[in-house]
Amino acid sequence: MPVDFKSRYEAIYSRRATRLCVGLDTDPRNLPEIVTDSANPLLAFNMRIIEATHDLCISYKLNFAFYESYGSRGHAALLGTLDALPKDAISIGDAKRGDIGNTAERYAATMLELYGFDAVTVNPYMGMDTLKPFFDYPGRCVFVLALTSNPGSADFQRLDVAGRPLYREVIDRSLDTYGSTGSLGFVVGATHPEELAEIREHVGSDIPLLIPGVGAQGGDAARGIEANNGGMAFFNVSRGIAAAGSGDDFAETARAAAVTFSGQLGQSRIAPGVTTE
Amino acid sequence: MPVDFKSRYEAIYSRRATRLCVGLDTDPRNLPEIVTDSANPLLAFNMRIIEATHDLCISYKLNFAFYESYGSRGHAALLGTLDALPKDAISIGDAKRGDIGNTAERYAATMLELYGFDAVTVNPYMGMDTLKPFFDYPGRCVFVLALTSNPGSADFQRLDVAGRPLYREVIDRSLDTYGSTGSLGFVVGATHPEELAEIREHVGSDIPLLIPGVGAQGGDAARGIEANNGGMAFFNVSRGIAAAGSGDDFAETARAAAVTFSGQLGQSRIAPGVTTE
Repeated sequence: MPVDFKSRYEAIYSRRATRLCVGLDTDPRNLPEIVTDSANPLLAFNMRIIEATHDLCISYKLNFAFYESYGSRGHAALLGTLDALPKDAISIGDAKRGDIGNTAERYAATMLELYGFDAVTVNPYMGMDTLKPFFDYPGRCVFVLALTSNPGSADFQRLDVAGRPLYREVIDRSLDTYGSTGSLGFVVGATHPEELAEIREHVGSDIPLLIPGVGAQGGDAARGIEANNGGMAFFNVSRGIAAAGSGDDFAETARAAAVTFSGQLGQSRIAPGVTTE
Repeated sequence: MPVDFKSRYEAIYSRRATRLCVGLDTDPRNLPEIVTDSANPLLAFNMRIIEATHDLCISYKLNFAFYESYGSRGHAALLGTLDALPKDAISIGDAKRGDIGNTAERYAATMLELYGFDAVTVNPYMGMDTLKPFFDYPGRCVFVLALTSNPGSADFQRLDVAGRPLYREVIDRSLDTYGSTGSLGFVVGATHPEELAEIREHVGSDIPLLIPGVGAQGGDAARGIEANNGGMAFFNVSRGIAAAGSGDDFAETARAAAVTFSGQLGQSRIAPGVTTE
């Protein structure tokens, strides 16, 4: 019987007292010179970032686009990075997949078996049936895109559907269909703090939220923590940490940035039932 | 200056007089025994299917989920399959990507540079800005998911938004933003023939439609051809051809199925300006 996702979250949160997720959106074209002589520069970079931040975060999020764009070396870097993660850190595979039944089943197998991520992101546009295969893995978390951090999130996600925005429809349909699995979460951008607060109130504190947009995208950590109101959450910071420095001391610079974000995303409010050390 | 997508389509359509796209959704777990001793069974299978169907279709669509689920061998099979395609066939990378700016830029580079597909599928949920990087490659085609072939397409795509379904909003926003690029197309399932006819009438005959759902999913080829009304279109058949047989003669069985579909998806109506041999 796998440990349920909430228990894993609470265990690591109780040790680290932060909701920081470090995003490994590692662009192979922009690596510090000091790693470029490595056999796999992208992997070498990630390992240094993990080493520098592992005690300051609860999770790492790997953005698939960057690994895919690097071909077979990217695939190797993805596998090597997963091996290098601390055993208790929650790994999030950010690939935003979404496709029909037999195809979705293969995407789920790739993310949750082949790579073995603890959590994934999925795109709901094609409907509830396309998400089902991801919920067939107990103990994992499936973050459904609700209100994303980018400006274009207004184009469709905020459209009015029978008196409320489409993203609320996505949330409610997902809750109706998969709310009882213990695996359902949502992606809500930190760039929308008011909506984040409303969504947190609506779904309650036990639904995990993956909250990107802090740092380079302009989301404010303190407002995000306030809006999240102590619920299960992963605040992702990618460029703000991993790309904070580009010199030989990039790992130290990343650590300094992670210290700051880790504190900002820290224990200002404690989730119910969770104690810090 | 790259040849524009419409000219490529018309050139191959004029030779083959069919709108059949063969889908290579090759599941590495269900390969005929005769290829399982090959160095890369998935690639060996695809090469046999391509050999058996290359004169009967205008396009091949590779569904990424199946290749990704096969790890590094899947990556090699993807590259090998692209190399094995006839030079004039239009290659469609069906990965349904969608993500924010810098990430979308990497997905576009992967699909259109690293792999060099002629066309890709993208998911519009995150908004128009997330699609932009795919339109930065002149001469390619970007198929935006509109009304997909699966039952769950009703969950969100058909929701009423100011008096019309969401998929129409997606189509119109896409036309407004990228209609002049010569690269915009849409995915519309053959399982919705009435809506397909309405969409074709709305967008005109020069917007390419990728139309999955014929065969295993229950879409009818003749009704689809009627609804498409002579416009630029790729009717995808995956399991109905590549999985038609499973014995040692699987390639012959696939060819027989492709002959049937190719005829059904043939020249009952000719696109304006296009002549058959």
